[in-house]
Parts: sequence; C-alpha cells; structure tokens
Amino acid sequence: MSLDYIKVFAPATVANVACGFDVLGFAIDSPGDEVELTKSDTGEVRITKIIGDGGKLPTDADKNTAGVVVKAFLEAIGSKQGIDIVLHKHMPLGSGMGSSAASSAAAVYAANKLMGSPLSDLEILPFAMEGERIACGSAHADNVAPSLLGGFTLIRSYSPLDVVKIDVPDELFATVVHPKIVVNTKDARKILKGQVPLDKAIRQWGNVGALIAGLLQKDYGLISRSLEDVIIEPVRSLLLPGFDEAKQAALEAGALGFGISGSGPSLFSLNRGKKTAETVAHAIKSVYDGLGIETDLFVSAVNQQGPSIIRSNESDSAKTI
Amino acid sequence: MSLDYIKVFAPATVANVACGFDVLGFAIDSPGDEVELTKSDTGEVRITKIIGDGGKLPTDADKNTAGVVVKAFLEAIGSKQGIDIVLHKHMPLGSGMGSSAASSAAAVYAANKLMGSPLSDLEILPFAMEGERIACGSAHADNVAPSLLGGFTLIRSYSPLDVVKIDVPDELFATVVHPKIVVNTKDARKILKGQVPLDKAIRQWGNVGALIAGLLQKDYGLISRSLEDVIIEPVRSLLLPGFDEAKQAALEAGALGFGISGSGPSLFSLNRGKKTAETVAHAIKSVYDGLGIETDLFVSAVNQQGPSIIRSNESDSAKTI
Repeated sequence: MSLDYIKVFAPATVANVACGFDVLGFAIDSPGDEVELTKSDTGEVRITKIIGDGGKLPTDADKNTAGVVVKAFLEAIGSKQGIDIVLHKHMPLGSGMGSSAASSAAAVYAANKLMGSPLSDLEILPFAMEGERIACGSAHADNVAPSLLGGFTLIRSYSPLDVVKIDVPDELFATVVHPKIVVNTKDARKILKGQVPLDKAIRQWGNVGALIAGLLQKDYGLISRSLEDVIIEPVRSLLLPGFDEAKQAALEAGALGFGISGSGPSLFSLNRGKKTAETVAHAIKSVYDGLGIETDLFVSAVNQQGPSIIRSNESDSAKTI
Repeated sequence: MSLDYIKVFAPATVANVACGFDVLGFAIDSPGDEVELTKSDTGEVRITKIIGDGGKLPTDADKNTAGVVVKAFLEAIGSKQGIDIVLHKHMPLGSGMGSSAASSAAAVYAANKLMGSPLSDLEILPFAMEGERIACGSAHADNVAPSLLGGFTLIRSYSPLDVVKIDVPDELFATVVHPKIVVNTKDARKILKGQVPLDKAIRQWGNVGALIAGLLQKDYGLISRSLEDVIIEPVRSLLLPGFDEAKQAALEAGALGFGISGSGPSLFSLNRGKKTAETVAHAIKSVYDGLGIETDLFVSAVNQQGPSIIRSNESDSAKTI
C-alpha cells in the first residue's frame, strides 16, 4: 500500500536563546503546528484549508509558507506530484514562538515522507528556510532548525549552511509565556546597533561556549550562569513592558535563566524539572496579571525529536487489520 | 618525613584560540617551565636562581612572576613560611606561548603542594593570575588557566571568575611554530578596534559554540570548520610577516585549523594525529625558511593534566629506600 496521506506535527521553538542571538534555538514538546498532506492527481500544490489562524494566513500556495516549502521541495527532487495541504495552527501568530517555522518544518517533513524520504532531515532544512523567507523576509534557520531536528541547535554558519545538534539533559524544561502585546519583528531588528563593543562581544562568546559546554556536560549550574545576554536583551527588552519584573520573578522562582523568545513578545525560561518550570510560569503570569496584560502559558520538556507523524493512510490501514 | 623540596613542571599554552579571543586556551605537553621550591627558615620568599632567561628576568621576588605568585598564595593562607625559588625557563620570552603563565602556574602549584595542598587547583588560579598582572599588566587567565588545569579551558567570566575545563579528543595534536620576530603585546592589543560589527560578532560566537561542541562530541570536522576568527586575526595578522602563506601551507598540509598563539608572533595549528602535526610544522617552517626567518618548532599532544611533580625530597627518599 503506497503512502498518499500523512499528518505531521512539528514543535514550537525558542530562537535567540539568551547569549546565542541568531545562532541558538530549541524546540519544545508543545504547542506546535500540524499539517495534513494528501497526494492528488492535479499536478498542483494547493492549500485546501487553514484552521486556527483567524483567517490571517494566505491560501495561495505561492504566498503561504507551507505551500512554498512543499513546492520548493518537489522542484528540488524533480517531482510534478500534486499535493493538497491542510494546515492546523495551534499557536498565536507573531508571538515569537516560531509559528511559521513549525508549519514550514511540518510541511517539508511530511512532503519528504510522502515522497518516500529521498532526502535526510538535514537536507530538507533549506526548503523549510524558504518558508521563513516568505514569512519573515529572510531565510533564517534559527527556528526551523530546532523544529526540524529537535533539541538545541546551533547555526555555526549560513554560508555554507552548517547546523549542529546539541543534546540536552533530560530534566531540562522550558517555560514559555506569551503576553498578549504586539511587537513588530522588523522594529525589534531595527532597534539593534550595527556595531557592538568588543568587550561585550567577548563576554557573549564566552557565554555561548559555556552554555554549549553546560548542555553537553549536563551541568545545570553552568547552564544557569551562561544564560546571559549582554548585547541584545538590554536593547530589545525596552520594547517589552514588564520584562525586568518578569525576569526577576522567574529567577526568584528558581529558573536557570530567562530571556526573550525570538524577537518577542514571548519570554522563556529554562528550568531544572517540570515542577520548577510550572512555578516559574505562574510567577511570570502574576507579573503580567498585575499589569493587566493577558498571557498564554506553556510548560514543556525540551523536545528531542523534532517532527512526529500523527497518522497516515498506512497507520489507519494497520489499525483496521 | 615532611615535604620541604619540590620541583614542578607546568606546560606552555596557546591562548586566544581562533574564534575564542580572550576566552579559550589550551596547554601542550612540551615545552614548559620548571620551578624548584625549597622551604627555608628565613621567613622570606626569595628567587635564588633563574636559568635559561638570558639574564632578562628580575630576581627581586616582588617583581618576578613566580615570586609574586608564591607570596600572594602564602599571604592568602596566612603563612609566614620562607621559600627559596629556582626558576628554569625552557621557552622563549615574549613568544606568545605563555612563558610567564607557565612559571606562575608551576610556582603556585608547587607552593600549594609544599604547604600540604590547603587549596584546590581552581582555588589557586587567582594567585597565578597575579603573576600575569606583573608580567603583562593585567591579571588575565587565558594562559594560566590551561597551564594549571590542563586541556582546553574556557573563561566564561572574569567577574566573578568562572573557568570551565573542556575535555578534548585523544588524537588532538598541536603544532606551535615560533618565528623569531618581535611583536609587542601592547601594540597587538592597541591595533584592535573597540567596536566590532554585530554580524561578525554573531559569526564568532557561532564558531565558539561549535568549537566547544566539536571538542566535546569528538567531531574533528566540526572542530576544523569552527577554527575561524573573523574579528581579531584579520587585524593582528597584518603585524606578522608570512602569516597568510604559513596559514595556507598549514591547511594544505592537513591542519584542522591555524591561527595566532596568544598575541603572536608564535602560530599554532590543531591537527588530528601526531604525524599530521609534524607534517604541518615542517610546511610552516618552509614558508619562514623562504623568508629568511628562523623558527622553533614544537609538536605535542594537547596536555590533559596541567602541572606535574618532577621530584621532591619525598620521592628522592623513596628512591633511596
């Protein structure tokens, strides 16, 4: 029986992890987006339905991230296969949790499986990056890489593309809080200076190296000390009401570290154990409650596997038997 | 029988390892400096002899790195013990191989042993840094840390002092070449700009993270790709005749990466296996031969243990029995 229907989940992600601006991201177990791909005989890639976006996303396959990603993938493998796509959005758009990246990662992972896995997960990454180009204006990888590969990922270089997967300790849990305020990613980038003081850059790369060492050596104390951003956070946090108070509350509640998720407005903390992660989530929520700002809270293990197949016509058939 | 004489070796070091300016260093098995410490009843710390320095180093214990280090250590543990110091210099001064750091590390390690090891290796590091303050004008740790701890070390932070030891793969060999030209460390620092472009800083911290991952995951390919310095090397290499040709020769001969050792003039490469390290050493030497510049060549495993005790009155006594 040939595979002609597949439903895939891909996880939300936190990019710009503290000291690792533009290079470090990680995936969380939930939330995430889902895509359903079905082969068709139309010879075309079509977005047939989008659920959960409040009507905000385009259904034109050339303008929708999932559509662009699947078309780029099919073109690269020289296939004229028609595919219908249904998109399930499970997280807020523009929240800094890698919403477009999760859709892109799920779409390319599903398409690759549907076509018999001609490429590896690392090989399909560039197609997911094309989805980011449509969504954000540049083909950045710091959300799609962890969504597609799982765990922590380090983008060593874009030219050539060089992505390193970093294993993380089992007890590492993330808290992500989405305060319902609007931050424009383009403003968030514009506010950054083109030049940075050398002494701060040195401190930043000392922290990046130490964070990688802490993760690989399972040294929670070192992870905690390294989750420091002396360059981006002091500037971008000015755009985020309540940031300083939320950070203080998170650290006092036992977080290993705290920072901006992507370019905000979501905030993240890394924590040792689920219980601490939950305590921290509520401590942050209290701060925003006090400011009259609504929040969505997410507590989750760091996702280690990337996308997962939820069902397919093969699994359905197996169940029937 | 109480310990009242000890002879200790501490290794030469390469600091400012490629992308890891001011934070990353490593120790090599040889060369290195030796110190002999003997308890005396004078109540004073004295430099009684210096061998191999060509008469260049001060014998006043308040001006000599080893003297300063031992005095600072004794003061910290509240001891008025008199100690006589003999210093054996086995590497060129001002070569960028951590000559002063090796003497400082050997001295404090020896003094701690002589006094019954009241402090740990990490706890004696600040005293060795005092030796660097005398020798170089600032209490930097990027040479003394690897000389004292062995392996690769990462200085995450100076304030508070936070040093991380990074294990390295067994087959990692270093080539260090000292071309006999004079570079003033102060000039080498003055030539650096106070501000760096953010995009280059990002590439640098991506490389630092990837180099740490490569070392810990024993991924030689990743180590090689990460040994890139886009900020310091392009500026400082202008002070070093033959640098570009030596780098090209080293990489063509199979080096994983190549760069300036400390602030020069010595150059280093990291290599997989001793044979490649030797081939690379000779390839670099050929370049300098062609320029009429003499070189000293050192090929060595990355030192994993730091200082070692060569002999003591206890070991001598054991041999007699």
